[in-house]
Amino acid sequence: MATVDTSLPAHPTGAAATLAASHSASHDLKLYGGWFCPFVQRSWIVLVEKGIAHQYIEINPYRKDPEFLALNPRGLVPTLAVPPADDGKAAAKPLYESSIICEYLDEAYGEDAAALLPRGRGEVYERARCRLWIEHIGSKIVPAFYKFLQHTPEKEYSIEEARGTFLGHVEAFVREMDGDERGPWFLGDRFSLVDVMLAPWAKRMFLIDHYKPGGVGIPATDGEDGGVWRRWGVWFDAITQRQSVRETWSDDEMYVEAYKRYAEDTTQSEVAKATRKGGKLP
Amino acid sequence: MATVDTSLPAHPTGAAATLAASHSASHDLKLYGGWFCPFVQRSWIVLVEKGIAHQYIEINPYRKDPEFLALNPRGLVPTLAVPPADDGKAAAKPLYESSIICEYLDEAYGEDAAALLPRGRGEVYERARCRLWIEHIGSKIVPAFYKFLQHTPEKEYSIEEARGTFLGHVEAFVREMDGDERGPWFLGDRFSLVDVMLAPWAKRMFLIDHYKPGGVGIPATDGEDGGVWRRWGVWFDAITQRQSVRETWSDDEMYVEAYKRYAEDTTQSEVAKATRKGGKLP
Repeated sequence: MATVDTSLPAHPTGAAATLAASHSASHDLKLYGGWFCPFVQRSWIVLVEKGIAHQYIEINPYRKDPEFLALNPRGLVPTLAVPPADDGKAAAKPLYESSIICEYLDEAYGEDAAALLPRGRGEVYERARCRLWIEHIGSKIVPAFYKFLQHTPEKEYSIEEARGTFLGHVEAFVREMDGDERGPWFLGDRFSLVDVMLAPWAKRMFLIDHYKPGGVGIPATDGEDGGVWRRWGVWFDAITQRQSVRETWSDDEMYVEAYKRYAEDTTQSEVAKATRKGGKLP
Repeated sequence: MATVDTSLPAHPTGAAATLAASHSASHDLKLYGGWFCPFVQRSWIVLVEKGIAHQYIEINPYRKDPEFLALNPRGLVPTLAVPPADDGKAAAKPLYESSIICEYLDEAYGEDAAALLPRGRGEVYERARCRLWIEHIGSKIVPAFYKFLQHTPEKEYSIEEARGTFLGHVEAFVREMDGDERGPWFLGDRFSLVDVMLAPWAKRMFLIDHYKPGGVGIPATDGEDGGVWRRWGVWFDAITQRQSVRETWSDDEMYVEAYKRYAEDTTQSEVAKATRKGGKLP
């Protein structure tokens, strides 16, 4: 989750603008989001993947929507307004924390066959393994992404260290992927929440290439660990071309603008402040 | 998860010794644990609550068990060895992260009626709400517990701040509890994983009373927020007297000994180092 910088473009652009416009009509199930927030994009991707009817409400740049603040006084996005189960007249109920929202949406909507986490009686271990690697994404890869992107020459760690940590966490993840080099997904031919959870940062890796000397630095695929990085390339191409990921994406240059203050380490967003302090992400 | 200090008593004592002894015979499902680790206790409680046949293997103080290290090279506890689903001849599969182990055990064993998370078709929101507050315990209450327990006069924060933060996170949790003041559980009359997740730290709060001037400092129940703290007291009494919690507990004085170095902030455990750095708990 991230609070929203207040001087950013106020609305999604490009494909995400089209998607938001087609979900602007009032609906009991509401996603409150900010177009540039990767945690929001996770929830948005699941809504699109499962074809769930909903209303998207952009609350960037001013968090003044009273209905939203009544639902989640902390004002963080994403927040999901869940319609009450009974008569529809009781108050909507809030959910937050993107991974919890995503698992909720997956469990509450759609057929078992289209589930984004293994759900069968014989798949309990597989489901737990997916949760382990979702945890790895959230507690290792994502914090290392920000530490890399927010690196400046003044930091007490070098950019090589930041790059090495990030790539190390990515490599551990790739080594756990199923399937042969054709992949493409974490579970081989089965798209899942594990893929969704990392998708927003895969899409944002070009910002590190843009802002940081040497860029992300994915190792060559003909080196010692070439197989790992070929498998990464297959996953990366598949996820960044996935329709739900493209449909929830604004114009590239808008992210370049939005993340400038991350790259200069001057943003006041919650996620950036936590990264700076070395603390847990909000 | 915590790595294990190497100069602690090597075995559980008291009730936990009895439990461990009755689960020392070889079994495909193995919990590798350290008797004093609260993250281990979470998993252990679920095994007892659900009456799951298993083998308990104490790996404190030396992490030299080769089967354990083959399963989890990082050597962290708790680790669960899950028997392969098929012929029983393939290798055991590892799970770690206490909350993931607990949810796995709940899903893999027992009847729906005895589930420790709401599981029904109409309970998807309730399940997500439980996960939100499990997340609150893990990301707010537990880190604040260590920051409080590891407070020393040299810290840049005062013990009053540490106490206030801890009690604030507990209060937010109590306000979310169902049921009237009779409770007793987070879900009212229904015992759940939410209760399990906080139980080990509820049992360890006496260590703050023992080591820190002013102790935990639970507010009076006749004050302005008296209802909150009465409800807390009902839950606290119920959880600390719960059979599964008592059966997984060693003698009090062993914890006093084990946590001395936490209270003096000189322990080298992973959880203590992370707390010192202000980072995310491992």
